Amino acid sequence: MERTFTSDLAAQSGRRVRVAGWLHHQRQLARVAFVLVRDAAGIVQVVVEDEGLRARLDVLPPDTVVEVEGTVTLTDQAPGGLELHDPEVRVLSTPTVTMPFELRRPELNAQLPTLLDHAAAALRHPRRRAVARVAAASVAGFRAALDALDFTEVHTPKLVASATETGANVFAVDYFGRRAHLAQSPQFYKQTMVGVLERVYEVGPVFRAEPHDTARHLAEYVSLDAEMGFIGDHADVMAVLRSTLAGMVDAVRTRAPGDMAALDVTPPEVPAEIPSVDFTTAQHMIEADTGEPTVGEADLAPTHERWIGEWARREHGSDFVFVTGYPAAKRPFYTHPDPARPGFTNSFDLLFRGIELVTGGQRLHRYEDVMAALGDQDPGPLAGYLDAFRYGMPPHGGFAIGLERWTARLVGAANVREVTLFPRDLNRLSP
Amino acid sequence: MERTFTSDLAAQSGRRVRVAGWLHHQRQLARVAFVLVRDAAGIVQVVVEDEGLRARLDVLPPDTVVEVEGTVTLTDQAPGGLELHDPEVRVLSTPTVTMPFELRRPELNAQLPTLLDHAAAALRHPRRRAVARVAAASVAGFRAALDALDFTEVHTPKLVASATETGANVFAVDYFGRRAHLAQSPQFYKQTMVGVLERVYEVGPVFRAEPHDTARHLAEYVSLDAEMGFIGDHADVMAVLRSTLAGMVDAVRTRAPGDMAALDVTPPEVPAEIPSVDFTTAQHMIEADTGEPTVGEADLAPTHERWIGEWARREHGSDFVFVTGYPAAKRPFYTHPDPARPGFTNSFDLLFRGIELVTGGQRLHRYEDVMAALGDQDPGPLAGYLDAFRYGMPPHGGFAIGLERWTARLVGAANVREVTLFPRDLNRLSP
Repeated sequence: MERTFTSDLAAQSGRRVRVAGWLHHQRQLARVAFVLVRDAAGIVQVVVEDEGLRARLDVLPPDTVVEVEGTVTLTDQAPGGLELHDPEVRVLSTPTVTMPFELRRPELNAQLPTLLDHAAAALRHPRRRAVARVAAASVAGFRAALDALDFTEVHTPKLVASATETGANVFAVDYFGRRAHLAQSPQFYKQTMVGVLERVYEVGPVFRAEPHDTARHLAEYVSLDAEMGFIGDHADVMAVLRSTLAGMVDAVRTRAPGDMAALDVTPPEVPAEIPSVDFTTAQHMIEADTGEPTVGEADLAPTHERWIGEWARREHGSDFVFVTGYPAAKRPFYTHPDPARPGFTNSFDLLFRGIELVTGGQRLHRYEDVMAALGDQDPGPLAGYLDAFRYGMPPHGGFAIGLERWTARLVGAANVREVTLFPRDLNRLSP
Repeated sequence: MERTFTSDLAAQSGRRVRVAGWLHHQRQLARVAFVLVRDAAGIVQVVVEDEGLRARLDVLPPDTVVEVEGTVTLTDQAPGGLELHDPEVRVLSTPTVTMPFELRRPELNAQLPTLLDHAAAALRHPRRRAVARVAAASVAGFRAALDALDFTEVHTPKLVASATETGANVFAVDYFGRRAHLAQSPQFYKQTMVGVLERVYEVGPVFRAEPHDTARHLAEYVSLDAEMGFIGDHADVMAVLRSTLAGMVDAVRTRAPGDMAALDVTPPEVPAEIPSVDFTTAQHMIEADTGEPTVGEADLAPTHERWIGEWARREHGSDFVFVTGYPAAKRPFYTHPDPARPGFTNSFDLLFRGIELVTGGQRLHRYEDVMAALGDQDPGPLAGYLDAFRYGMPPHGGFAIGLERWTARLVGAANVREVTLFPRDLNRLSP
């Protein structure tokens, strides 16, 4: 008999079916046992009346792997509106230890480090699993939105000869006796590929030797990168980013509605025009409101980003807000200046509910401009990147979305580690 | 005026349009210049009669980045059946060096190392670009096929505490003063995730410190991994692999038909049932045919794989062939044995046109079996992986497809480096 997912049982009313999964929980009463079996799709209740079978099941620990044949019986009393009657149960494998926490509880009752130490167990909790599916749906939406705009997916190397943007926070690798680095971003490669395919995106790991142990930094995370040629300026990039975010939200809605419901999360609205505020204007607004000296600082503190997020919510009813025109001092060398305002740039950040989610902007595209921006920096290690400009590059720009930050904000997790399968940080390299 | 891709010009006959791209080639005649402009979508011919404009264009090097406004004129004489008349040309950026080879030639006239050294230029050749798009289409097909089978995409860490399968060929990373490794595969993590989501796939980089400089090995490549629970045995995995390959071929057909045509490549047929031959049976066939002593060896040599590929082509008309039942000696410790034949396993390779493309099989799923298979190996570094089995794992299996090998075989490239954007090997870490 073919195995049926628990989500497909309703159509099989009255029939014998085979389900397979993990013993989620069992309640033994005087004459009957209610046994919950969890599979990837959901949970089904199995009603066991046979005394011998009840005795056999009673000794099985939670998460015993079982196959159950039973008759699908619709009933309002059962969770999900149906249950399996007259079951036969076959044990496929038996846990050798007791779980460090009970998966049957609505919330995992343990501290984050404990959950991360026991990832193989904690990820089985229906809420953690739902988060993993929401993340997957988001990535599918990212790709679908950009595919529809004629972007091509690329895969660029993570082993690189030179650090991507700065020499700091980079992991060193012993590469056949030479020193290599792990790419901090696909920045140089995606720009090079604009010279080839005009519009490219990449979904892949990036590596930052972050010495800070914060709730929003990881040593390895998934970066959703896009880059496009023949733009007017960064506004064209922001328009594509808006479509991309809308595609991600759409995909979450259509591909993971049950998971969003299980997490009790409503997807945000992406406005047709995301509100936007100039960096310096925002500083003036914050200073006027809070009295804190803010104007003239080269970057926004997290408290300032929260302020702007609240402002966007209040004034524009939006969870998303662009901040544009960052000072050149705090942006990477390849950032295109604002032609009208020396010292400022054609760059942006996108804040999602008050936290920086995306960084992007227009890049320099003329060889001589890139060389001038490098200043005293040795161009040698960047030779492959500089080649793209030597051979002729169009005006271009792009952005990078941090997947874990997106997912954390979307589902309301306080720490990116709660939405990362196997997080890596200063203190954690396993499991 | 909005920019129009060269592929969308036919619908604009008689209208003024703006195209943008790279000066692909120009032919200056006595009274007219024929200027080819290349964009991501194709090439359009621009007819320049104005003497001043001709003189201005004449000095521009190949791959100058331009915008051209002109009138779309249908004509059988022009390549693609149309050309732009009465053009105005604006230069967006000018190359500072001459290309090391002529992109306008049907084939790049240079040796592979030269092409790889100048990747930013070589990748712009229409054939190289077509290969990149065929690879992207293949990956999209991989995901679509598995999405349709209820697989969930995951992203697992590339920075790991322990080597994946063997201690050999692993890159060491300085991880905040500790020693870490780059993952040789997502094997342990995808198996762990079977305990969570039952069916998972991952598209991501894997790292092998391959000391061999061959045409089919890279130090970093893209692995298309899938893993699934509640299987009977490896035959269920092979059936999913067949669907996946069919999905990849379908996607190449539907998403990159122009690129396949440009490469003069016909997609292979994936038979409804891919022919399959037992490892030992194949050895007997090879020995009988070639006279070479083959039976009893623990693995197949590349010449043997070619023999089997030719046999499948000849006897079954198939470009694909499964080899099943490899000896345990040459498979990783987690491979499930063949219950009926001690010393052999429920494993397979898939050969595509005579080269190993996929490795897969059923895995051990009982904790005690995994521990026994580990033998003398210290289980400490594998604690996170072993946890999955301690908590109860279903029978499961999976496979891994090497993207570069797939693409190389598909387009008929002799060396995987020809189909990799920025290959990494023993000697090459840049560009």
